[in-house]
Amino acid sequence: MVEVRSFPSARLREFSRQVFRHFDVPEDDARLAADVLAAADLQGIDSHGVARLHTYFDLLSIGRINPRPEIRVVRESASTATVDGDKGLGLVVGPKANAIAMAKAETAGTGWVAVCHTNHFGIAGYYPRQALERGLIGWAMTNSSPGVAPLWGAERMLGTNPIAIAFPGAAEPPIVIDLATSAVAYGKVEIAKREGKPIPEGWAIDRDGRPTTDPDAMMNGGALLPLGSDREHGGHKGYCLSLMVDVLCAVLSGANWGPFAPPFALGTQVPTRSVGKGIGHFFGAMRIDAFRDPAEFKGQIDALVRTLRRTRPAPGTSGPLVPGDPEREAETERKARGIPLLPPVVADLRDVAKRTGIVFD
Amino acid sequence: MVEVRSFPSARLREFSRQVFRHFDVPEDDARLAADVLAAADLQGIDSHGVARLHTYFDLLSIGRINPRPEIRVVRESASTATVDGDKGLGLVVGPKANAIAMAKAETAGTGWVAVCHTNHFGIAGYYPRQALERGLIGWAMTNSSPGVAPLWGAERMLGTNPIAIAFPGAAEPPIVIDLATSAVAYGKVEIAKREGKPIPEGWAIDRDGRPTTDPDAMMNGGALLPLGSDREHGGHKGYCLSLMVDVLCAVLSGANWGPFAPPFALGTQVPTRSVGKGIGHFFGAMRIDAFRDPAEFKGQIDALVRTLRRTRPAPGTSGPLVPGDPEREAETERKARGIPLLPPVVADLRDVAKRTGIVFD
Repeated sequence: MVEVRSFPSARLREFSRQVFRHFDVPEDDARLAADVLAAADLQGIDSHGVARLHTYFDLLSIGRINPRPEIRVVRESASTATVDGDKGLGLVVGPKANAIAMAKAETAGTGWVAVCHTNHFGIAGYYPRQALERGLIGWAMTNSSPGVAPLWGAERMLGTNPIAIAFPGAAEPPIVIDLATSAVAYGKVEIAKREGKPIPEGWAIDRDGRPTTDPDAMMNGGALLPLGSDREHGGHKGYCLSLMVDVLCAVLSGANWGPFAPPFALGTQVPTRSVGKGIGHFFGAMRIDAFRDPAEFKGQIDALVRTLRRTRPAPGTSGPLVPGDPEREAETERKARGIPLLPPVVADLRDVAKRTGIVFD
Repeated sequence: MVEVRSFPSARLREFSRQVFRHFDVPEDDARLAADVLAAADLQGIDSHGVARLHTYFDLLSIGRINPRPEIRVVRESASTATVDGDKGLGLVVGPKANAIAMAKAETAGTGWVAVCHTNHFGIAGYYPRQALERGLIGWAMTNSSPGVAPLWGAERMLGTNPIAIAFPGAAEPPIVIDLATSAVAYGKVEIAKREGKPIPEGWAIDRDGRPTTDPDAMMNGGALLPLGSDREHGGHKGYCLSLMVDVLCAVLSGANWGPFAPPFALGTQVPTRSVGKGIGHFFGAMRIDAFRDPAEFKGQIDALVRTLRRTRPAPGTSGPLVPGDPEREAETERKARGIPLLPPVVADLRDVAKRTGIVFD
């Protein structure tokens, strides 16, 4: 029986802020980074919240993350910019680059920002939600260290490379899409291993490139499969989507792409070759009135959301969800009852507390 | 034994051009439309080439397609436009709207065009290839009549809504991505039916929303499944992608979305309600030098393509393809040997010839 303790979100956020401050991250940046982590925990994306704080701590400790980056626009046009994150926290570089995309949209109709020299930026869905607050359509993508095999490949060549996009409604909540382009997240394989269960076919291959249902076979030199899993079910499409994200985030910005994207972890093998700077992100923002009357647009989004909710349900289900529903439900629940943390996560935070002298518990 | 006859591409293109001219489509538009169809046949996308000519013929005959549309920009900003296609051929409205996106990119860095009041625009991949010819990154999406159930839904609510994007290389061929957001194309279910074979699990549901392997059960009131198929393999992600395309193409432009997108066929039930004009497309174009030195970008695409080709192959395969490879292979083969057409397609073209008085055979 695993004891899960819950912590108020504000308390975890304050702890994160202090940890970033400990490394001399500027006050505003420390708040921002803590906010991005807190958003993940509130929305139920446990893998991307304070569970990652120890890794940020590790990489700040050894200087692989720069606490006081000089984030620079290295190239721009009316609707675009390329940003060099100067090895700053992805949790800080990301929001600042996204703000540039939003500012460009306000003058040119749309704004598109490619970012290099950055690292893990938290949940992709955070960024289009920022755009929603300004009445914009927002996009975010990031590449990440290789964990996924291309269809018909036997080794890790691409990241789980997520795509996020959000559209505002009027009376209805927004549509918020945030999906990894692999069949599943690595975290689901870890959970199966912990529980001693096999994984479904279509999730992974072993180190020889053969389909496997053994979580260990995936974790020890195997790879995740792209969305669609095999040729018959469209695995080539998931591979294409992951590759699209990799090019927009990394090739366009000057970051490391494909198998050369550096890992976000201590003690993981760093790629032998560097083809750019850090990893890359890609942000987009679109002003609705650059295309259509915003009231009309939002009214139609409401109608679409209601239409989707009226879909006849498949047997044994209560019908389709609207993208963003699970995160909204989690947020309501967690605002009321706090963020449940597993014992290893609590132990990690205690370790950070001990090493920094910041009070956690 | 099915007798497949091959026809030179130029001859099929000329026949299509004459058929469009028969309806008083302007000469330049007729050439353009015939080119888009010919591109599909050359690239091996048989479902989107002259096999569709009879349907364009039908819809022109009954006035559901306007042969001489007044294609108008109804709203614009520095980097965007919304285009009303005036019920013109999608094969003409599409390229003209795409040209607006490319022109916007040349001045503002990127160009994004949402299109309403249009219909079937051929293969999505045609459009980013046009962008490649101008040294741009190109995007294209379209919504289409409902054939796909959202995850956990029991009925058709969304189209197969494709996403295409292309990136130029230097010495290597470009990366050209073109994928439907359903697990498979409807055409594959039709092929299984014709051959009397079951379809794999994960492709479709029957009219009650239950998984089925019977092509008839899908075709008679059932639905295709989104990319990812079921919850365990990421069917919610394919659903999200299809919905994203629907919003960008239809809600943003003022076209019919979701279950209200009109069918591209005679004799198919037209939705009871209209929520906009025709179907919708979405085009994007990005100037590479708005982000990065183009020679550097293309050099890195070459390196990425070579890296992907060096991936260790999965057992029983010759390793991953680069997106665009199958279409390039088909084009080489078909330029040399002609376009193979199945007897029902030849019969359709003969019927068009008979009704228009244009010589086909």
